[in-house]
This record gives sequence, C-alpha cells and structure tokens, in this order.
Amino acid sequence: MSDATEARLAALEERLDRVEDELAITRLVASYGPFVDGGNADAVADLWTEDGVYDVDEGFMAGREQLAAMVRSRAHQGWIKDGCAHFLGPAHVTLHGDTAVAVCHSLMVVNVGGEFGADAAFRVRRATAHHFELVRGGDGWRVARRTSRVLDGRPEAPALLRRGVTGRPA
Amino acid sequence: MSDATEARLAALEERLDRVEDELAITRLVASYGPFVDGGNADAVADLWTEDGVYDVDEGFMAGREQLAAMVRSRAHQGWIKDGCAHFLGPAHVTLHGDTAVAVCHSLMVVNVGGEFGADAAFRVRRATAHHFELVRGGDGWRVARRTSRVLDGRPEAPALLRRGVTGRPA
Amino acid sequence: MSDATEARLAALEERLDRVEDELAITRLVASYGPFVDGGNADAVADLWTEDGVYDVDEGFMAGREQLAAMVRSRAHQGWIKDGCAHFLGPAHVTLHGDTAVAVCHSLMVVNVGGEFGADAAFRVRRATAHHFELVRGGDGWRVARRTSRVLDGRPEAPALLRRGVTGRPA
Repeated sequence: MSDATEARLAALEERLDRVEDELAITRLVASYGPFVDGGNADAVADLWTEDGVYDVDEGFMAGREQLAAMVRSRAHQGWIKDGCAHFLGPAHVTLHGDTAVAVCHSLMVVNVGGEFGADAAFRVRRATAHHFELVRGGDGWRVARRTSRVLDGRPEAPALLRRGVTGRPA
Repeated sequence: MSDATEARLAALEERLDRVEDELAITRLVASYGPFVDGGNADAVADLWTEDGVYDVDEGFMAGREQLAAMVRSRAHQGWIKDGCAHFLGPAHVTLHGDTAVAVCHSLMVVNVGGEFGADAAFRVRRATAHHFELVRGGDGWRVARRTSRVLDGRPEAPALLRRGVTGRPA
Repeated sequence: MSDATEARLAALEERLDRVEDELAITRLVASYGPFVDGGNADAVADLWTEDGVYDVDEGFMAGREQLAAMVRSRAHQGWIKDGCAHFLGPAHVTLHGDTAVAVCHSLMVVNVGGEFGADAAFRVRRATAHHFELVRGGDGWRVARRTSRVLDGRPEAPALLRRGVTGRPA
C-alpha cells in the first residue's frame, strides 16, 4: 500500500468514526422517549453506565436500579396508563474523543381528556432542558450523567442549554 | 490493489452504506410533516411504496391513491386552512439490510385562535406513537407500513414504541 | 495507487463529504434553540453569515448586530426569565454543493404558571414553519436567510414547508 493510499484510508476511517459516534449518540438520545413511554424499564436503565446519574428537578437517581425503579414507579406507570409523550428534540452532539456532551429540549405532553374523541385534550406538563455527559465503553456509548431542569424561569435551565450546546460539562 | 487496501476499502464502503441508509430514512421521516402540512398530496403518497399502508386510529389507508386522498380531503385541508403542525420528533432507526424499522413521537398542534396576535392560541390535539416499516426499492427507501396510535392510554401506543425502538415489526 | 483504488477512494471521499455536510447543517439548526433559550446572543448571531437575514412575521433582522440585539431585547429576555422553549424539530436538509436548504417546524412553548409545581402550566404560544438557506464559507456552514411564518392559516407558512422540503429557495 502506498503512503498516499494509507493516508487517505486513515483520514476516511477517522472521519467515519466521528460520523458513527455522532449518529450513535443521537440514536441513544432518540431511544429514551420510546423506551420510557413504552415502559421498558431495563432498556431505559441500560442507556446509562452502571453507576450513571440522572439528576432532574423531580428526583435524583444514581445507578441502573434506581433508573429502572423510576420507570416501574406508580407515578410513571400512571403517566403511561393515562397517555403520555416524553417528546425529546433532536440532540446536538459535541464529541471529545471517548466522551461527549449532548443537549436537547423536551416536552412532556400528557393526556388529560380520557380516550381520544371530541373531548380529548393534551397538555404540555413541562418543557425541559437536558444535558447529557456520555462515555464510550466496551459496548458503545452510555450516559454517565444527565442533568435536566424545567424551563420555568429558574436560571439553571438556560445555563444547561448554554453549557450543553458548547460541549461543556454541566 | 493489495488485499489490505481492498479490505479497508470494502469495510469503509459497508460502513458508509449503513450511515447513508440511516440518514436517508431519518430524512424521509423528517419530510412527512412539511409535505403533509404543506398540502403536497402526491409527495406524501410517494413516501410509501405503491401498495403501502398507513394504519392510524383515525383511518386506514392502503395504496398511494388513498394516501393522497387523505391529504386532499376536506378535513385535512381544513387543518391547513386553520393552521396546523404535524410535528414529528427525531426518528430512531434500526437497519435490517434492505428493510428497516423507525419509531418516533409526534404532536399534532392546531391553531384555535385565528390569526396570530394577542388572542392567538395553539392546542396539542394529539400526541401519537409512530412505527414505520421501511423497504429499500429501486429508487430508495419507502414506507411499506406505518402504524400510528394516539397516546391516550390505549395499550397499543406504548407497545408500538417498544416494538419500534427495538427494531421489531408492529 | 491503481486507478481502481483512486476511484474508490474518491467516491468514498465525495460520499462522506455529503454526509458531513448534512450532519453539520442539522447540528447548526439543532443549536439554535439551546443558544436562543440560553441567551447566548453572539452565538445565535454567529449562526448566520455576516449579513444574514432572519425574516420572521414578528420582525425582520439583517446582519449579526440585529440578530444579537433580538436575543438581548427586553422581550426575549422576558421569555427566558419566565421560562421558554424554542423547540425546533429535526431539520430536513437538501444539499446543492456549496449551498443548501433546510426546513423544520418549531413550537414556542412558554411557561405561564410560575415555578414548577401543582399550578405550573405551559402553553404553545406559536407553531412555526422555518425555511433556511445556507451557504458554506471559510469556517463552515452559515444561514444566509431564514424565513419563518406562524402556522395560523396564512398561506405563506405551508408554502415555506413545501419549498423547503423540495430544496427550493423561499
């Protein structure tokens, strides 16, 4: 193999690595809503590292057991039973080699009108800022820490957006 | 060409094929909302295969003629006339060679307050789970079957999310 | 390097260029919401070219100074202070070499219930159609012109969606 061929192959491989990393992380973030609204507790927990943290204004979870317990909780099962969408927006990803930062908004939309029909109604229960710190492990990318704050005027929420979109830790 | 060069080129080509497939499908799903809210009936229909199915709780359509007729219907034209967003979230895609499964949420947001101004108001009419089964044909990816259920507590909707995000058929 | 190797390398490079362009533009669009809700005025302005235009029904801005001033305005700072999400959907991108067109919906969701709690409430203030005309410059992709119209029934909004998703200028 000539030096020129080697250099072009290596450059392509490195660029494609980055593209695949970015897509893997956007796919991971895009899987959270379907898993959590689908009630798949173990799959939600498995998006995090074993000791991963989910720090949200409504609760603080550390480790997969607590994450799965959140999905299995009476409160969460109630959302599913009544009708609920954890609707996350497109993730903006910043790669730092074997770690990464992602940021997105979400809307939690809940059904407040019973079954669909003339009187059906959905309400936006909360709009939230999400900041993800991710690490690459033996079997792919996982969330090491997710920090989420409701956009109700508290300054932490815009700060998470600013730090997330510029690739900085929460 | 050396065997080593051949192997690295082939690996790159295969990886890039998958990246392009994933992007083509996310682009297809991302085009549905603009086409349907833009009233482009033929373009909506062309997202499906010729005999593609759209199975949604508000109707069952089979084939491009029925899909285009839905967009041209008085009901749909009324949504456009009053102001409407079929807002689909980022698609999560699972590739299976020449078929694929995608899943996302959507919010259908309708204007209920007339023209924009002090009294303008938008309402979330429905939050929906969408499951897409796609096939690759001669001119790219198309939807073979889309199954959509409103997230109002009916168990089919979370089930679609679970099956979609794990790459299984509806 | 053999002709066959050269041809395969060149084809890979060209395909990867397009993938990276598409991802760069989706990332740019995905950064707008976090920057604008995070109050990062200069970063918002820097998404546009120096003389870039943001033509929206609530105002017309030309050049980075006017864009930054919008973020710093009393009205915008009020949205941040009360709680606000400029929630943009996944961008659909059409590449034309060194220019591109992107389209997406957005929901502007505002907190109308004070701090999060039993009485918290969020409202969809507007659903909007966005059409982006982008150019590639010395340091990457920038918005040359963004045209946004509220989906309240005015015909310009569906027209923007139709033109955007088919890759045509606004």
